[in-house]
Amino acid sequence: MKNLKGACIFGQSGGPTSVINASAAGVFLEALQQEAITEIYGAEHGIRGILEEKFFDIRKEDVKELEYLKNTPSSALGSVRYKLKPVEVDDTDYKRLLEVFKKYNIRYFFYNGGNDSMDTCNKVSKYLQSVGYECNVIGVPKTIDNDLATTDHCPGYGSAARYVATTMMELYKDMTVYDTGLICVVEVMGRNAGWLTAASELANVHGCGPDLIYLPELDFDVKKFVNDVKEVAKKKNNQVLIAVSEGIHDKDGKYISELFSDAARDSFGHAQLGGLASVLANLLKDEIGVKVRPIEFSLMQRCGAHVGSGRDIEEAFNAGKWAVKYAVQGETDKMVVFERVANGKDYKIEYKLLDVALAANAEKKIPNEWINKEGNGVNKQFVEYALPLIQGDPKMPLEDNLPRFAKLKKVYAKNK
Amino acid sequence: MKNLKGACIFGQSGGPTSVINASAAGVFLEALQQEAITEIYGAEHGIRGILEEKFFDIRKEDVKELEYLKNTPSSALGSVRYKLKPVEVDDTDYKRLLEVFKKYNIRYFFYNGGNDSMDTCNKVSKYLQSVGYECNVIGVPKTIDNDLATTDHCPGYGSAARYVATTMMELYKDMTVYDTGLICVVEVMGRNAGWLTAASELANVHGCGPDLIYLPELDFDVKKFVNDVKEVAKKKNNQVLIAVSEGIHDKDGKYISELFSDAARDSFGHAQLGGLASVLANLLKDEIGVKVRPIEFSLMQRCGAHVGSGRDIEEAFNAGKWAVKYAVQGETDKMVVFERVANGKDYKIEYKLLDVALAANAEKKIPNEWINKEGNGVNKQFVEYALPLIQGDPKMPLEDNLPRFAKLKKVYAKNK
Repeated sequence: MKNLKGACIFGQSGGPTSVINASAAGVFLEALQQEAITEIYGAEHGIRGILEEKFFDIRKEDVKELEYLKNTPSSALGSVRYKLKPVEVDDTDYKRLLEVFKKYNIRYFFYNGGNDSMDTCNKVSKYLQSVGYECNVIGVPKTIDNDLATTDHCPGYGSAARYVATTMMELYKDMTVYDTGLICVVEVMGRNAGWLTAASELANVHGCGPDLIYLPELDFDVKKFVNDVKEVAKKKNNQVLIAVSEGIHDKDGKYISELFSDAARDSFGHAQLGGLASVLANLLKDEIGVKVRPIEFSLMQRCGAHVGSGRDIEEAFNAGKWAVKYAVQGETDKMVVFERVANGKDYKIEYKLLDVALAANAEKKIPNEWINKEGNGVNKQFVEYALPLIQGDPKMPLEDNLPRFAKLKKVYAKNK
Repeated sequence: MKNLKGACIFGQSGGPTSVINASAAGVFLEALQQEAITEIYGAEHGIRGILEEKFFDIRKEDVKELEYLKNTPSSALGSVRYKLKPVEVDDTDYKRLLEVFKKYNIRYFFYNGGNDSMDTCNKVSKYLQSVGYECNVIGVPKTIDNDLATTDHCPGYGSAARYVATTMMELYKDMTVYDTGLICVVEVMGRNAGWLTAASELANVHGCGPDLIYLPELDFDVKKFVNDVKEVAKKKNNQVLIAVSEGIHDKDGKYISELFSDAARDSFGHAQLGGLASVLANLLKDEIGVKVRPIEFSLMQRCGAHVGSGRDIEEAFNAGKWAVKYAVQGETDKMVVFERVANGKDYKIEYKLLDVALAANAEKKIPNEWINKEGNGVNKQFVEYALPLIQGDPKMPLEDNLPRFAKLKKVYAKNK
């Protein structure tokens, strides 16, 4: 545990969320308070911005605009998908990184992302230790997928979950308006873990949710699916609302979307891009003969900050803040994790640290006992887990009744 | 102009909006104040509910729940698409309607919908007059398409427009996060009029909107479209955000979505449902070779009450209220229309009446002079028209931080 004096750098990595910038705000505003921290840098496009020496001088930004980051979805600094090779395979990036860190006297490195980004944190941290360069490295978790191990939940999930639940309720109202029958197949993000798809169950808390929910935690059986839908259709006047995770797969692990799309081409010979929802809608249309509408929540579910969770924003902000606090206290090689110390109306979390390596290569899925016996829904235990996470007014600042996003100057840092 | 005493009936027709129930609330809550009105009925599934004698006794509902209708999207009574035949072709429905009206002493008929519903109003009104049955008939406008003639704008449009503009801003933030290039093609509702698609321009007021907007008011030229996109892609690092109306068509009037979809089948031989966004995305992918993502705002744009326009809700409510006030004053055969008497920050409308026949068979499109010369955007005049319509907090009531929708008892009316 070393107390260091020097510059800090913060980077954003992986798919954006509604609150990744809230964590940025937490890091920057806390860094401004810390005497140990000299310069404050924001890496453009994550680790790549460091390697290319492209980062912004955050001290040049208005504090008010940094506050607006709390409600600005996506990654204000730019994101990246860049996986560092193992140092023993190729140490070029590591050497370059060390060079840049030395040049700017960077003694604090904060990286915000999911599993892969925690892997980056871990590798960078271990490398810097191995060469004796003193730098405290702390990972800040984020992912709408909510699949990071070691933490109760991930910043970004609560907001996306509130989007999904709210939108499901509205869709339910819309699709039941005629009595002529309509099946809606709604595709929700989440390749390997069904947390976000399961959030559609929250819409059922007040009776406006999906009839069937399919998660990637289980193998998907097309025949059983069609039967499930037929059964609900019979009971409910051919009105069926279905939530499916984009990552559902057959027992051999092959994605359902791929099973059907191989030879799909339009009349001009262009390959069809059609997603999973379309594939399943086509199938049901043929099998049941009712009107079917495929719906994708697409990018909207991860950037719908206007319907975000106030609690999620606050926690994401605090995660950034605590990363800085802990680092300045001398902690390194860790990730900020949430520990839920009370649930329900008394919900409370504590901000702890755990070895970043633990989060790097693990994936947290929905426990089997939270999934119903039929494999087409989740139970009360899931609701008790997820409902507290979508609470709180996001307090979106508005201008012309439209979101007022942060306007950063983005002045590149110069070597001093 | 006759002052009548008797029951009133209200029906909802056509595609739902975020605020059609706000108009219902306006009708019901005002009717409760009027001594001339005895029973208050809500027709189940519009005109069909009247023909089938299925309507709800609104006096049995809690006033508090009727208030909740203001923020409950879709059509709480159920909607219908049912076009009355001209009376000279077949008068069966008209005779049945008269029978029901007599049986329940219905003296006030309010119908909420778009062009077709105003046609229904008109036909019913003319028929009742022709047989000497005294009943005041007032149409209440609604449509997210905003294409009703005679009124400055339509209830439902402002809320859908706010959904579109807000979501566009968030999408813009999301899609510009990597620097690897991404083209998003966003499909917005509106078959014949581009009002809702044009609302995406409001996202440009604060610099986070689409680069290109295509409306059904103009013929769509596929080649020009590809060139437009290529040009923007060159200038903007292959990041292009495009809004297209579902109704764009070639110079012969054929929908672009149909041009490409004729032979599209997947590997199992199922017809592909793929919408316009997918069709255009496939095309661009082949022509430009950049990653392209098709996005449909689908049903979400018309039921996204959580991001509705407070002003739209208020106006929809008032439209219902004024329909009742005017009818009780003896007006009939009219539609409530909005007249904008001041714009900008002083925006103000007055609630007037016009002959319902004028709205019945006309369609209002975006004036040519509001569309840019290149035919791929709208100008400041459109923004000045539309921006005031998306103002105001919808004040969505929440429960567990999710929408609290109205819970109606829906007790069928019994003949007394």
